[in-house]
Amino acid sequence: MTAYTEAITFTQAQVEAFAALSGDNNPLHLSEAYAASTIFKTPIVHGMWVAAAFSRVFGTQMPGPGTVYLSHNLQFLRPVYVGKPYRLSITFLRAEPRRNHLFFETLLTDAATGKKMVTGEACVQNAAFVY
Amino acid sequence: MTAYTEAITFTQAQVEAFAALSGDNNPLHLSEAYAASTIFKTPIVHGMWVAAAFSRVFGTQMPGPGTVYLSHNLQFLRPVYVGKPYRLSITFLRAEPRRNHLFFETLLTDAATGKKMVTGEACVQNAAFVY
Repeated sequence: MTAYTEAITFTQAQVEAFAALSGDNNPLHLSEAYAASTIFKTPIVHGMWVAAAFSRVFGTQMPGPGTVYLSHNLQFLRPVYVGKPYRLSITFLRAEPRRNHLFFETLLTDAATGKKMVTGEACVQNAAFVY
Repeated sequence: MTAYTEAITFTQAQVEAFAALSGDNNPLHLSEAYAASTIFKTPIVHGMWVAAAFSRVFGTQMPGPGTVYLSHNLQFLRPVYVGKPYRLSITFLRAEPRRNHLFFETLLTDAATGKKMVTGEACVQNAAFVY
């Protein structure tokens, strides 16, 4: 498999659970009144909660169990809102077989418009095969 | 405040809760038997769970509530283990006032040896002050 894609929606329950677990109680993610005072107007999803979805795919689907992150360069281009339909895609870019490094593009797009919300590139390896 | 630092330890309960919430059930983080078959020997913390700690500091401490991520470039240099004492540090690097961009170095070190575990640079802005 060299490309993975899924439809994804982030729920308010997930955002609240991530806030409680991480302690990131930034009101931008939790308070409708606070968010209304910002350019975003309504609460937005934590960037690192979006990143957790990429981690889930790496660790369970592609390349799969045993994957360990070496780097992830994330760009949060546009606000991600609760309840909106998005598409998460991970595409294999290249391998460095000598060091067992695999590079992937990570992407979250608006399912309706195709606009890029979160872009990035990750380097991972499989812990079961290292050295 | 231009630098923030805290002692931090990642617990197995947090790792299990993050796995359950995100769906990242990679056995490298959850199974002692699986981890024993890898170079890590015992389960390691999800990279994105470490990243969530940086997000917590940005969203609650420095620069504080209303912070929104624009980018975060994370390097996972060494495995982070449950129960080990680490030090999390975030240091202000520079501002681009025209666009209200703030750049920070993010760092997780081994509290005992000072070795760098996770390095990175983040760009954030405050949603309450954007444009």
